[in-house]
Amino acid sequence: MGPTRFIFLFSVVNTISSYLLMKHLQGVSNVVITDLLEDGFGDHPFYHCVVAEVPSEQQSNNGPVVIGFAMYYFTYDPWIGKLLYLEDFFVMEMYRNIGIGSEILKLLSDMAFNTRCNSMHFVVAEGNQKSIDFYKRRGAADITHDEGWRLFKINKSSLFKMSSGTIE
Amino acid sequence: MGPTRFIFLFSVVNTISSYLLMKHLQGVSNVVITDLLEDGFGDHPFYHCVVAEVPSEQQSNNGPVVIGFAMYYFTYDPWIGKLLYLEDFFVMEMYRNIGIGSEILKLLSDMAFNTRCNSMHFVVAEGNQKSIDFYKRRGAADITHDEGWRLFKINKSSLFKMSSGTIE
Repeated sequence: MGPTRFIFLFSVVNTISSYLLMKHLQGVSNVVITDLLEDGFGDHPFYHCVVAEVPSEQQSNNGPVVIGFAMYYFTYDPWIGKLLYLEDFFVMEMYRNIGIGSEILKLLSDMAFNTRCNSMHFVVAEGNQKSIDFYKRRGAADITHDEGWRLFKINKSSLFKMSSGTIE
Repeated sequence: MGPTRFIFLFSVVNTISSYLLMKHLQGVSNVVITDLLEDGFGDHPFYHCVVAEVPSEQQSNNGPVVIGFAMYYFTYDPWIGKLLYLEDFFVMEMYRNIGIGSEILKLLSDMAFNTRCNSMHFVVAEGNQKSIDFYKRRGAADITHDEGWRLFKINKSSLFKMSSGTIE
């Protein structure tokens, strides 16, 4: 990887990392910058990114270069087919309301079409009405509400118990 | 692909397909058997399967060979890291309550560990209390209830509107 590419990727994961810090001030992430680099840009990427950058002629030495991102990957539903799953989506506060989010979502829609995806899925925190309104204006449906789908997790310690035969 | 492998894969996707028919009797799937074959076992698989088979010495000519499956893939959360996402999980009615589901879930837990996943995620329909109890006994937490995460979708026609600039 050349130095320019590295600086760019570092800028991307640094933006993701700042966003995580902001979003979860009270917690400690399992994921560090080196994981984000390896997991997204290593030999077997587990996610992809669309990024919004400040045009080079408007960049200052101190300002951010990457000011927004969407993290996505492809999933599958045997009933629907290929899906584009939007994992996370963020535009820095001072760059909002000028259409960057819409532009990113347009790019993702183009990508969904070009990769023959039949739907885009994502989760939103129920208290985040601003985001819910943003997506609903673009045709999003709340399938937890409409179809009763609930998201579950089994954490690492319970997986370990199953794997080791402690729970059957 | 050799004929034995093809017959086996056909048996797998046939089981998935029968399950889909049973689950959604009222609907028409976008996905047909040839899609399931291509999407799961082509050059770029979008899902993986664990299958439960009747041992060869107990197979009859008319009985099913593949009697259960779990469909899964890997996803990513920038806060948690790699996730094993359990998309669908099914054991034929007459083969239930003899531990096949537990065995499949144990295999998936082993796989999650070996691939350094920090959690297993999945959705369950809120009316499916039997499945919810099955997962909760194994340590599952309802993060729609506990953390307020709601699942949304944007369907193909709305993606097209965004892609073509009709919605901004």
